[in-house]
Amino acid sequence: MKGSGVRLYMGLVHYPVYNKRFQTIASAITTLDLHDLARIGRTYDVRTFFAITPLEDQQVLARRVLAHWVQGPGGRYNPDRKEALGRVRVVSSLQDARDAIQKAECQHPILVGTDACRRDGGSMAYEEGRTLIRRDGPVLLLFGTAWGLHREVLDLIDHVLDPISGPTAYNHLPVRAAAAIVLDRLVGR
Amino acid sequence: MKGSGVRLYMGLVHYPVYNKRFQTIASAITTLDLHDLARIGRTYDVRTFFAITPLEDQQVLARRVLAHWVQGPGGRYNPDRKEALGRVRVVSSLQDARDAIQKAECQHPILVGTDACRRDGGSMAYEEGRTLIRRDGPVLLLFGTAWGLHREVLDLIDHVLDPISGPTAYNHLPVRAAAAIVLDRLVGR
Repeated sequence: MKGSGVRLYMGLVHYPVYNKRFQTIASAITTLDLHDLARIGRTYDVRTFFAITPLEDQQVLARRVLAHWVQGPGGRYNPDRKEALGRVRVVSSLQDARDAIQKAECQHPILVGTDACRRDGGSMAYEEGRTLIRRDGPVLLLFGTAWGLHREVLDLIDHVLDPISGPTAYNHLPVRAAAAIVLDRLVGR
Repeated sequence: MKGSGVRLYMGLVHYPVYNKRFQTIASAITTLDLHDLARIGRTYDVRTFFAITPLEDQQVLARRVLAHWVQGPGGRYNPDRKEALGRVRVVSSLQDARDAIQKAECQHPILVGTDACRRDGGSMAYEEGRTLIRRDGPVLLLFGTAWGLHREVLDLIDHVLDPISGPTAYNHLPVRAAAAIVLDRLVGR
């Protein structure tokens, strides 16, 4: 199986994110999203997909799902799923994800965020993102859960990608769909 | 809200499809996929998303979900979801979907299928698909559930799109992710 040579990482942030009223929360792990983002990440050769949550019970839940599919009977039933979920790592914070990448790559990752809303400060076009990943990696691509990445996270990161939009103003994609589109635009074909 | 003017329809086929052993089956409705494909379809201005199943109990289930979100309390809680699910229609067969489009557009739709495996007879590049949709519509874009669209369906349709591939040979995307990528490639930006 050919690899892309691209040093791309992905993180799904459960804290800090916003709820519907723009209050700061830690969202619950959605086990389906672990599967979907792992399969999408594997398709586009993401090296590690970090599920980021500080909540210990949620970490336990996520690790139990992974153990079933990676070491347990799930992986024997469905080896493709094992291959995808084998690249998932549960960590407590964005800092832990950065440290893990620094350790693996001997280099700090460039942080690239996604946001459904257009920002005042300008955002990065996908063509620029493609070049950045090929030329300057490693890159850690961050997705928010619930109502999106907290401002604290957005302030830390190096670039925010353009919001995804189709031909209409409707922008309520599930994070599963957004991640698929973003990865296809950044490293597809 | 601006529209795209593109006459695009989408169908999720639950029969006939294959199971893991390439036997012909009718798959169960996944209510999450109704939500996800409706949101993705709404983002890319798909006119109607047909959930296609001949199983009456499955039709009842799907219509109950839609009633909750379109006429019921779900839509008051989340109007964006109502807007997306308001474009979903449950039908018994591919023929019923074609007839509904013929009635709405006074023209038979061109049938475009998707398949994770490359076909012997050749498949259509996304650039060609973009042109087809803009120039020749209406188009009905078909996705299979379970292990994919049955040969009976593939034999009926006019074009099959290239399989989606990232930089690796891994091709086990959820239909939710595949639909997002295909629509983005065909009518995005």
